[in-house]
Amino acid sequence: MLTSIKTGRLLHDAMAETSRLINLAIDDMLPDEEGDDGKLIRSMRYGCLGGGKRLRPLLVLQTSALFGVAQSCALRVAAAIEFIHCYSLIHDDLPAMDDSDLRRGRPTVHKEFDEATAILAGDALLTMGFEVLAEPATHEDPNIRCQLVAALASAAGAAGMVGGQMLDLMGENKTLDSAGIARLQRLKTGELISFSCEAGAILGKAPPPQRHALKAYAHDLGLAFQMADDILDATGSEDDTGKSVGQDAAAGKSTFVSILGLDQAREQAAMLARQAADHLEIFGGRADTLRELAQYVVERRG
Amino acid sequence: MLTSIKTGRLLHDAMAETSRLINLAIDDMLPDEEGDDGKLIRSMRYGCLGGGKRLRPLLVLQTSALFGVAQSCALRVAAAIEFIHCYSLIHDDLPAMDDSDLRRGRPTVHKEFDEATAILAGDALLTMGFEVLAEPATHEDPNIRCQLVAALASAAGAAGMVGGQMLDLMGENKTLDSAGIARLQRLKTGELISFSCEAGAILGKAPPPQRHALKAYAHDLGLAFQMADDILDATGSEDDTGKSVGQDAAAGKSTFVSILGLDQAREQAAMLARQAADHLEIFGGRADTLRELAQYVVERRG
Repeated sequence: MLTSIKTGRLLHDAMAETSRLINLAIDDMLPDEEGDDGKLIRSMRYGCLGGGKRLRPLLVLQTSALFGVAQSCALRVAAAIEFIHCYSLIHDDLPAMDDSDLRRGRPTVHKEFDEATAILAGDALLTMGFEVLAEPATHEDPNIRCQLVAALASAAGAAGMVGGQMLDLMGENKTLDSAGIARLQRLKTGELISFSCEAGAILGKAPPPQRHALKAYAHDLGLAFQMADDILDATGSEDDTGKSVGQDAAAGKSTFVSILGLDQAREQAAMLARQAADHLEIFGGRADTLRELAQYVVERRG
Repeated sequence: MLTSIKTGRLLHDAMAETSRLINLAIDDMLPDEEGDDGKLIRSMRYGCLGGGKRLRPLLVLQTSALFGVAQSCALRVAAAIEFIHCYSLIHDDLPAMDDSDLRRGRPTVHKEFDEATAILAGDALLTMGFEVLAEPATHEDPNIRCQLVAALASAAGAAGMVGGQMLDLMGENKTLDSAGIARLQRLKTGELISFSCEAGAILGKAPPPQRHALKAYAHDLGLAFQMADDILDATGSEDDTGKSVGQDAAAGKSTFVSILGLDQAREQAAMLARQAADHLEIFGGRADTLRELAQYVVERRG
């Protein structure tokens, strides 16, 4: 996933370091357990330690660094968001949902374990995300911790990610227009990406102009990311993406590609990525990694 | 469900009032939505407005009243716990789990809607529980709100309810001893019942002796409740309980009844109920409703 020649050096290093740190943090919070009683924990670890780009943790760490937040605090928030992102993938992959056998180049959780275990692993990861945020080690100010819990719940729940997944399921064999797809994607993936950027501002008690800049960046980044995802689903290979491809067309789903066509989707994604980077002017050179990230999300092959 | 002649007058009134209040609170937090986009909300409402004994809300309201907590705060915590209790029922009923068609005398959520919607309704209710707790209206002190979030997550997650459900699934066709069943049930239902009692103490910043008394009460009440549940599954009718019965035996599960026999299970449940009531001495007459509740859980027919 780091093979694109266009990935900048700053971003390349930050992605590698984020993966290393988040894997250590998750391993620490979810220590391996042997025996029958450890099956749930093992399925949770399988679902959130199997690679992935760690885009959301990267956003939390990078935006937190802009405000001088302690890395130990930012890492806990990054882990909480990753638990919730991974739970959503586990549940999305279930037979009753997208019915996917492959994720990040490995069998999905319900294929590696079983369906009941996958449902419970998702439930437990979702619950754990909020537990981590509420604990004192996440921030000394309980007001900040409550803000994080409420904002993450809002981004992940019926008015955010779960609502978007519901629209996505109902959109099979139903034609949406470009605005309808944008709304669906804003809920399904955009809200959690936005919260990942907002988290740094909340942790660092950032002033409003910086908050708004990150919010605008996150909005365009999320949309660009989803357009690129649709393009990869239409043109990518299973080897590059590590997951089943061509699923959108097979399910009769409207996507940015089916509506805009491949060329225009590529053009719009690139335009959004440039626009995202432009929102970061207020941070000067300290946001260069976030700028490189905006370019990367539309140029990645997996 | 209020038909047992042994239900005391205090408890009878408190149960009716709790049901009325919690239904209003849930209706207010989850307003009905029409049209395609409202399907997720409707499935969430179906899953948590279809009756039920409201045992956990009753515990929150009663224990909160012992410490003079404002009812508006206690009700929010009661609703949060009920969201999480109802999500667990929706997911437990899924085909990959207990595969139940009937709950509270009505089709289960995946029967009334579909399986994908039931998974998402559960996810959204779980998420909403934490959102409600973290919001300022739940308590003016953010430290208290964080304590509630962390304690509920601990009671509901891998080390609590979800962990117990996992043990339950793995216990099919596997013989557990009495201690093994007690452990499973403490996780699966006991932890959330305990938190429902603890919540009043957290909200009211109760001193340690009162906290310990409620903890001891909750422990015995939870175990008595589960023994009574096993007895009802073995002897009750679908009409009385409003759910499928005889499922434990059919699944080859060890239960208190299969291990102790019906007579001894009844005796132990009654003993635990008396013991639970005895823990409340410190509260004098103000805890009479909670005392009647202990008796009710082992004498109920549904």
